[in-house]
Amino acid sequence: MIIQVKPDISDSQKDRIIQEANQSGYKITEVKTQLSTYLIGIGKANFDIRKLGLQEGIQDIHIVSDDYKLVSKKWKAKPTSIDLGDGVRIKDGDMALMAGPCSIETEEQIVKTIEHLKATGIQIMRGGVYKPRSSPYAFRGLGIDGLKLWYQHAKAAGIKIVTEVMQVSQIEEMYDYVDIYQVGARNTQNFNLLDELGRVDKAVMIKRGISGTIEELLQSAEYVFSGGNEKLILCERGIRTYEKASRNTLDLNAVPILKHKSHLPVVVDPSHGIGIRQFVPQMALAGVMCGADGIIFETHETPDLAYSDGQQTLDFDQSTKLVKQIKDAFELRKSFI
Amino acid sequence: MIIQVKPDISDSQKDRIIQEANQSGYKITEVKTQLSTYLIGIGKANFDIRKLGLQEGIQDIHIVSDDYKLVSKKWKAKPTSIDLGDGVRIKDGDMALMAGPCSIETEEQIVKTIEHLKATGIQIMRGGVYKPRSSPYAFRGLGIDGLKLWYQHAKAAGIKIVTEVMQVSQIEEMYDYVDIYQVGARNTQNFNLLDELGRVDKAVMIKRGISGTIEELLQSAEYVFSGGNEKLILCERGIRTYEKASRNTLDLNAVPILKHKSHLPVVVDPSHGIGIRQFVPQMALAGVMCGADGIIFETHETPDLAYSDGQQTLDFDQSTKLVKQIKDAFELRKSFI
Amino acid sequence: MIIQVKPDISDSQKDRIIQEANQSGYKITEVKTQLSTYLIGIGKANFDIRKLGLQEGIQDIHIVSDDYKLVSKKWKAKPTSIDLGDGVRIKDGDMALMAGPCSIETEEQIVKTIEHLKATGIQIMRGGVYKPRSSPYAFRGLGIDGLKLWYQHAKAAGIKIVTEVMQVSQIEEMYDYVDIYQVGARNTQNFNLLDELGRVDKAVMIKRGISGTIEELLQSAEYVFSGGNEKLILCERGIRTYEKASRNTLDLNAVPILKHKSHLPVVVDPSHGIGIRQFVPQMALAGVMCGADGIIFETHETPDLAYSDGQQTLDFDQSTKLVKQIKDAFELRKSFI
Amino acid sequence: MIIQVKPDISDSQKDRIIQEANQSGYKITEVKTQLSTYLIGIGKANFDIRKLGLQEGIQDIHIVSDDYKLVSKKWKAKPTSIDLGDGVRIKDGDMALMAGPCSIETEEQIVKTIEHLKATGIQIMRGGVYKPRSSPYAFRGLGIDGLKLWYQHAKAAGIKIVTEVMQVSQIEEMYDYVDIYQVGARNTQNFNLLDELGRVDKAVMIKRGISGTIEELLQSAEYVFSGGNEKLILCERGIRTYEKASRNTLDLNAVPILKHKSHLPVVVDPSHGIGIRQFVPQMALAGVMCGADGIIFETHETPDLAYSDGQQTLDFDQSTKLVKQIKDAFELRKSFI
Repeated sequence: MIIQVKPDISDSQKDRIIQEANQSGYKITEVKTQLSTYLIGIGKANFDIRKLGLQEGIQDIHIVSDDYKLVSKKWKAKPTSIDLGDGVRIKDGDMALMAGPCSIETEEQIVKTIEHLKATGIQIMRGGVYKPRSSPYAFRGLGIDGLKLWYQHAKAAGIKIVTEVMQVSQIEEMYDYVDIYQVGARNTQNFNLLDELGRVDKAVMIKRGISGTIEELLQSAEYVFSGGNEKLILCERGIRTYEKASRNTLDLNAVPILKHKSHLPVVVDPSHGIGIRQFVPQMALAGVMCGADGIIFETHETPDLAYSDGQQTLDFDQSTKLVKQIKDAFELRKSFI
Repeated sequence: MIIQVKPDISDSQKDRIIQEANQSGYKITEVKTQLSTYLIGIGKANFDIRKLGLQEGIQDIHIVSDDYKLVSKKWKAKPTSIDLGDGVRIKDGDMALMAGPCSIETEEQIVKTIEHLKATGIQIMRGGVYKPRSSPYAFRGLGIDGLKLWYQHAKAAGIKIVTEVMQVSQIEEMYDYVDIYQVGARNTQNFNLLDELGRVDKAVMIKRGISGTIEELLQSAEYVFSGGNEKLILCERGIRTYEKASRNTLDLNAVPILKHKSHLPVVVDPSHGIGIRQFVPQMALAGVMCGADGIIFETHETPDLAYSDGQQTLDFDQSTKLVKQIKDAFELRKSFI
Repeated sequence: MIIQVKPDISDSQKDRIIQEANQSGYKITEVKTQLSTYLIGIGKANFDIRKLGLQEGIQDIHIVSDDYKLVSKKWKAKPTSIDLGDGVRIKDGDMALMAGPCSIETEEQIVKTIEHLKATGIQIMRGGVYKPRSSPYAFRGLGIDGLKLWYQHAKAAGIKIVTEVMQVSQIEEMYDYVDIYQVGARNTQNFNLLDELGRVDKAVMIKRGISGTIEELLQSAEYVFSGGNEKLILCERGIRTYEKASRNTLDLNAVPILKHKSHLPVVVDPSHGIGIRQFVPQMALAGVMCGADGIIFETHETPDLAYSDGQQTLDFDQSTKLVKQIKDAFELRKSFI
Repeated sequence: MIIQVKPDISDSQKDRIIQEANQSGYKITEVKTQLSTYLIGIGKANFDIRKLGLQEGIQDIHIVSDDYKLVSKKWKAKPTSIDLGDGVRIKDGDMALMAGPCSIETEEQIVKTIEHLKATGIQIMRGGVYKPRSSPYAFRGLGIDGLKLWYQHAKAAGIKIVTEVMQVSQIEEMYDYVDIYQVGARNTQNFNLLDELGRVDKAVMIKRGISGTIEELLQSAEYVFSGGNEKLILCERGIRTYEKASRNTLDLNAVPILKHKSHLPVVVDPSHGIGIRQFVPQMALAGVMCGADGIIFETHETPDLAYSDGQQTLDFDQSTKLVKQIKDAFELRKSFI
């Protein structure tokens, strides 16, 4: 049960609502976000919401049978729109493009990539400065200094930044330099990290876990939302299966299912989803066609020299061509509605 | 190694080639198909194909490092085209449409479905008369009588038939009434069935196994081809994973990968691939966009009354709308090349 | 619902029972096995079995909520015992041992293996004469002649034979030479084969599908049982997962679960379950300890020269040692009850 | 390549070794643990270790082809033994027992559990005070206060504590009250947490990831070891597969494989591995039989009243009976060597 309270509710009104819910067998968690205050009720009893609805201070009440509540479309049918400023938005009915290298490597690489993005009309740049690596001996990224350098150029060019945050202590140091915090596939159920990102007033994109279910992805989003942050994006990036001909199995089924279950925007990552450069464009276009609100892909001036993920990274010519195709496919999709 | 021999090769010439290959450590299997005769050499030794190439009677020799040989694009770069007669073709650069009910149920249903297919321009009708069912107590299809009834109407309307064959003994009795034998996902590795389908001069569509790999699907096709039948179609229909929000996980990665590895046409089945009616169109369009040569989907006049698979079956209005969208998406895809 | 009828029931009594069940919304399938006659009722209505129980000719009625009926322990709590003659039994509370090569190769190999089995007290010999192979160019076994040769030696030595049947047409030709028909992991859902094995009065061991669920394995057994054959054995042999350090993932969880759900004996195959020779003994012992009624493993005089599966095959010394350990572990397990 | 240096190596000697390795194309990471100092070389060039071995200050050099180095048995054949003090050890050739509730709930529960452990001879108590939960609204554990309370009683009774640490900031506050930090299945690839646990001089038990490979588990252990902490334990707790009849699929294959690849002790968790109370004992015994160095299981005075995981938790009578059986099975296993 979600009780959205009025902005001007008094403490005593709120206490009365909580008390009544408790008496009906519901445990209440209070959630304050950038936009509103909610009382989330968890309980199993049958509940007469009309009676509770008579209490003062309530704007709206919904019964939500899903295990996740605030991210469910059963509560909020209107799609969530994320505004990154300067006219950059991620939202239903639009096609957000995010591209860039796997890892931020050098200043020259940053500059070249930004030039490419500007030329093709991509507004959001991806890149890793903290890299989760299976082996402790592999390159782990340039860290906060790399991010600051990147930010300087991106800011000047009007390009937004999406980059992975790996642990709680990085949230604050990264804050001034990121537009979207990315939660990586290995951290989708790092609940402390999700809790803390709930306390930040900045967009968060959560990648589906390496073998995470659709339900778990929504529950992870619920962590951030219930922590107080409504600016959430979901990302399908492929799951682990027995098939070894591709790096992961891009589960595009997840796109219409997530769009149906949740009001949050859904982005598709074809680079990790198939892991083979020459097939990334086809999978990006498939993602557009089945309903994605955005595409995130890896591009690099010289993919074969990239520090990481070169095998799934497009060069700039391929990237330019793909962006045009994505736009055409998106226009066609819009005509279908 | 694939040695394609000349049509007019003499027995003694052939013997000499085989002998020389044997001496080089290669075991030879002779394959005669509708189109040609091949000597397939399996062995591990390094092989100087130039020396063998000097033998008379040889048209072409290729080293194929894949475990499958005749279905590999390394041998035959030109895409295979399946001609079903009356101008109906399944081939690269075209978009074959196959639709119809899960099960053939009644004459009225057959007639209504054919009317719908004619009206929307779908040339191939799907439907099951032998149904593989997990439970021995479930409806198992109308059998050969259902097929004959169906054939009578389809023939008259110029509609081609694709339907599942479950065992060797059915091949002959079905022969006069089918245009494409379908091998179901539970029979992808029923090697005896594949062997026998190799002896038939009719198209065969092999569905990927319930948890079959891409490699295994190609090996299964190799069985039919090496049995003598080149008229082969591959079908991606979703795989079994841990995810339970969809019936199967439609692995669209398989489409560009299969197209890259093999010269055979690839069809996508979004109905089984996601298993949820309202999302079938999105997945069909995604399939088109990532390179499928055809789409097969379930449609029924009244899906909720269907004997089986109603939950993933489109009604005729949805089907009509989808076909139009598929055609538009296919036109767009063609413009991308 | 399972209605076990009396041996001397009259046709009119049976008709009356069926009629009444039909009226209550239940579809009846009549099943005649070696031991009894059953009327299997499938339906969703609530059913007052007491009222039906008043009909004459009925021995016993059980409501079985599982999708499988006759193989369920909810109907028949007493474990099934398979008697192969000459004192060889597969049953709860006993430890059946089956061993032998992957493939039957030569007469010498047969003789040597039988000597080894006799020396270690193993009463059932495994071996393939029809081999399902992913590639059409691989060795497919010696066929029926190999089986006859094998039978000749096994019969003389008092050794029972378990071997794979791949298709319906082989059932009859193999009949005189096998003691247990094995249904392989790729044929677990070959429903025609299961149907036909239901008509045979000989034991059938069904291997779990390559990625088959426990439920599906029981449904496959239900096919054979409902065809008329109660002499059934279930076999856990590992499932397909993402893990590549082993050939399959031996799912020993399946052992106590199958024993709990069904009255059929359960055999574990550690050779395919892990696929690595040096670890087969540990997995065999684990299988004994979690409740298996039998162990089937691969052994060969010279595993490295075996035509197939050498990497997971024990030599005779390893086999001798393992059998002793299995017996000790089984004695310990019995002491736990 | 692992270069173990002498305790009294001089800085200039070390520099010379690093320089020479660099010149041969190897990047060196220096690792200092509680026991020794290692130089880990990562590179692809062929390397003549004899030449490097002539340098002064080197105790031992090993080429390790695995991606993990320090946890590999190729480097260190001697099994690692973890000494928790007071005679409590986890090591090859021994059987460590860890038991307790899923969550620490109340003082009474702590006291009762400790009494039970003392009575049955279990020396290590498990229990969660920080609980990773899919839903943000679920019980998340008593936190540090619960741990302190628990420690007080455990210390007095001579019982050791193993409990999950979820984030870096908890490491220090938990330090005085834990004997083994547990890394949960959702944090197996939380690399920052692993890095920090490498800096602690206390045992760490790493659970295999929800769908983690055996290779990834070893890589995660390598993180901790290369951070400086050799006191490592690996835990198999079941993996995610398509099978839904059990909570997870306990992958006992992992036990002999991990024991073969690594010198670290391996513990099996049958409670999470199957997730069904009545089958936990069988799976525990199977784990013992295939080579585990320890068993961790959930027990509670009244499982049906437990805050979490009650369905897989043994009551004290079941626990007592199981411990006796584990000991018998372990004695039998020892007799096999």
